[in-house]
Amino acid sequence: METQTLKPARRGRGARTAIRKARDFTMLPALRRGLPLTEPMDEVEIERIDAASMDILENIGVVFRDDTALADWRGAGARVEGETVYLDRGLVRELIATIPETFTYHARNPANNLPFGRDHAMFVPMTGAPYLRDLNDVRRNPTLEDLANFHKLSHMLPAIHSSAHHIVEPYDHPISQRHLRITYSSMKHSDKTFMGMTTSPKNAEDVMEMCAILFGAEFMETHPVVTGNCNGNSPLVWDETMLGAMRAFNKRNQPVLCSPFVLGGANTPASVAPTVAQLNAEALSALAYTQVVRKGCPAIYGHYLSTVSMKSGAPMAGTPEISLMNLMIGQMARFYRVPWRSSTSLGGAKTFDAQAGYESATTLMALQMAGTNYMWHAAGWNEAGMHCSMAKFVVDAEQCAMAYRMAQGIRWDDFDEALAAVADIGPGGHYLGHAHTLENFQRAFFMPELFDNNSIEQWQAEGAIEINARALAYTRDLLGAYEEPRLDEAVNEALLDYIARREREIPPADALNQDR
Amino acid sequence: METQTLKPARRGRGARTAIRKARDFTMLPALRRGLPLTEPMDEVEIERIDAASMDILENIGVVFRDDTALADWRGAGARVEGETVYLDRGLVRELIATIPETFTYHARNPANNLPFGRDHAMFVPMTGAPYLRDLNDVRRNPTLEDLANFHKLSHMLPAIHSSAHHIVEPYDHPISQRHLRITYSSMKHSDKTFMGMTTSPKNAEDVMEMCAILFGAEFMETHPVVTGNCNGNSPLVWDETMLGAMRAFNKRNQPVLCSPFVLGGANTPASVAPTVAQLNAEALSALAYTQVVRKGCPAIYGHYLSTVSMKSGAPMAGTPEISLMNLMIGQMARFYRVPWRSSTSLGGAKTFDAQAGYESATTLMALQMAGTNYMWHAAGWNEAGMHCSMAKFVVDAEQCAMAYRMAQGIRWDDFDEALAAVADIGPGGHYLGHAHTLENFQRAFFMPELFDNNSIEQWQAEGAIEINARALAYTRDLLGAYEEPRLDEAVNEALLDYIARREREIPPADALNQDR
Repeated sequence: METQTLKPARRGRGARTAIRKARDFTMLPALRRGLPLTEPMDEVEIERIDAASMDILENIGVVFRDDTALADWRGAGARVEGETVYLDRGLVRELIATIPETFTYHARNPANNLPFGRDHAMFVPMTGAPYLRDLNDVRRNPTLEDLANFHKLSHMLPAIHSSAHHIVEPYDHPISQRHLRITYSSMKHSDKTFMGMTTSPKNAEDVMEMCAILFGAEFMETHPVVTGNCNGNSPLVWDETMLGAMRAFNKRNQPVLCSPFVLGGANTPASVAPTVAQLNAEALSALAYTQVVRKGCPAIYGHYLSTVSMKSGAPMAGTPEISLMNLMIGQMARFYRVPWRSSTSLGGAKTFDAQAGYESATTLMALQMAGTNYMWHAAGWNEAGMHCSMAKFVVDAEQCAMAYRMAQGIRWDDFDEALAAVADIGPGGHYLGHAHTLENFQRAFFMPELFDNNSIEQWQAEGAIEINARALAYTRDLLGAYEEPRLDEAVNEALLDYIARREREIPPADALNQDR
Repeated sequence: METQTLKPARRGRGARTAIRKARDFTMLPALRRGLPLTEPMDEVEIERIDAASMDILENIGVVFRDDTALADWRGAGARVEGETVYLDRGLVRELIATIPETFTYHARNPANNLPFGRDHAMFVPMTGAPYLRDLNDVRRNPTLEDLANFHKLSHMLPAIHSSAHHIVEPYDHPISQRHLRITYSSMKHSDKTFMGMTTSPKNAEDVMEMCAILFGAEFMETHPVVTGNCNGNSPLVWDETMLGAMRAFNKRNQPVLCSPFVLGGANTPASVAPTVAQLNAEALSALAYTQVVRKGCPAIYGHYLSTVSMKSGAPMAGTPEISLMNLMIGQMARFYRVPWRSSTSLGGAKTFDAQAGYESATTLMALQMAGTNYMWHAAGWNEAGMHCSMAKFVVDAEQCAMAYRMAQGIRWDDFDEALAAVADIGPGGHYLGHAHTLENFQRAFFMPELFDNNSIEQWQAEGAIEINARALAYTRDLLGAYEEPRLDEAVNEALLDYIARREREIPPADALNQDR
């Protein structure tokens, strides 16, 4: 990807072929880290967070606003008073001990399967944006076509390991039926891993049925093929919608991200370590519940994490405490031997300006050092998640490729050979024509396509184009070169039949009131 | 700094007073790190770099294009053939062993003195820009007035620890006399630490004389009061200008930054670890020479470090190999127990767009994790150093404040108190009105002034202003509120007398040909 120059847009099949030839769209394997992690807490401090979280679970308790969950917890031996579940630390430890530390995350193309957990990481696009900034940099509500475009980009960008699900919300389709089309779009336009909607228990069941069509119900019983996200209501509440969706996934042995939704200072204490203690208690309570539903089911320690501005109450991004908390959360997840997710390339900027760049790069670098396994919201996120930017999507994807390269660490395989070049060249020479340089330059130093490093004279001669416009041109090029990964025709028809049947069953109007 | 909203520009003394009241301009103390460093090499790998560098010094040698230095090296017992000096590893180790691991870097206001080295860090603005992007975002050659404005900003921005020297090149003054006005501007407009020009041995002598006027010649003999930078010509060459300037500083016991100027792939091998081995050899040769000039004189392991695009030969910024090499260089400097400098907030963008944000934040985060002591080029750098942006200068300074906060690590002092708040609030509550929140929010979470986190509606109502324009308005406000730190009148006159005398002595035309 990184050795080609940005070509002017061309049209037609010839152009598509040219772009496909010029660029390598092969997905990078799951990242395997070669850099040491940044671990700000020592063992005593980790245990201090653990003890505080366990105290919260035992003494303050967690509200499960869901009768089934309350009954499940009673059955598991927890003390339940009203909707509050008091979790003994022994029970919590026993339950989370059965969460697999690693698993293989399956894609419909087995070449895109991902080893998951421990020192592996994958990059997943942002999801859930109610607006997009489109190819003309216009901010508007997205459509199914926009969503398909993001799925196509996810398929093509090498450092992106998943097509996720509703990267943008397709407003041109009834909300009650939207999850079906979203899931189909993820499956159809990419053969990488994807995510499943958890917007209601019934929607989650539909996702499971569609996964069963794509992968086989039996295969799913022993192979994770999809991930769903379940947000908590911090402080210390899990609601019926999320718990029902969680059960739908877990019963099929599919992992959910157990994600406290933390706005530091608003729904947690105004302090770093105590916020992590509360978040950790919340995550543990849901992780433990997954094992009540199905022992041994994979699960992922999640969180959405921001701090709020005390000026406006708005969530911030790229601030130092967010970075510190992410480093700490990584340590807690590893302490419990559970894989974990992050919110990776966040930004609060309203446009793709320098603010967005600073915010996203800061968060990405911190999370790369934190050792997160599931690097979610890694591309496109801006305006505190209110819009997904097509320009930022491709730039973030290249940033992920660079973070990937950095996290791999240092290569030593050509060390002696290159030192021989130092002797060849000697003082005052230059290396550009040396055989070692010619052999190695393509892999030696990452050359970002979307950064312009030319002189100002050349940049002006090329139209004085800033990165936002360059990235939009690049995105147009990519979409022009897209080729759909073949989906078995019988599977495709079965999926479409399922969607058609469910769309007949689900009233389109209803859902606006109840189903999201 | 971080709790105030951006006010619309006002004018006059009332406005200045209002801004001064609203913002805290007190310099942050030198950063003392509380986060673990990122150290990608194990001991064996560190020793492999060390051995390779020592082999280079012994067998390939380093060219010192300077008769005095060659004579000095002969006197020190090195083998010299022509201009090539072959340095035995025993001699190198013996020489660098006398470089102080720490010292106090003195400012004319003792309140701004900085402990330097080991786990301390300071942030220093960019220097040497032949262009600026000014308050109207126009790219043009700078003047002495522009330089004064950057010195004023450096004085006011809390995370900036130095007014440096020629942040921008003042083109409205003859090049041969420019160093005098630059030095005076650094000294006059700020009472923080500053840098001294090394553009020629004679210029460096002038800086020493002016420092002697400001601090006293005797004081300088035992107290570092200024730093100079000496660039190497990679591979493996030091020239007469730099070596002469180095001697001028060292003879007065003032530290220089011994900085190989590395464009990875062009003047080093196209590979990460061998590039560090060569750079390390170059730095060691100059560090060792400082101790030949004056045993025990402080010195700083330096480097300018980029990788070049194999498309254009242009230097890149924010790429993963630059980050990895910085992490490695930090380990080597600590291995030799010598403080070290970095190039911190680099960018190759032509404007202050998202590219600049990504590049700078990536480099800054890597260097924060690398544990650099002298975080140079930390504010304003863009276009590969060709211009200093007034907008980026203040945004970078706030980024430095955030990196500072992150590097301090985690506070635990209110942990139990905040956990009591979790119990008070309980499941489903919110913390905004809690006493702990009200007491702690100002220090708990950094609130960047230059990031906009408002809703898009509010942002639009305020004029839909991107960060570049917001930062320029902010900069205008700051400059309007500037108050000069008092310089003793006798000292001021002595400095002006010295400059007047030297400007009579130095022909203004001459220098265009020889003195830069």
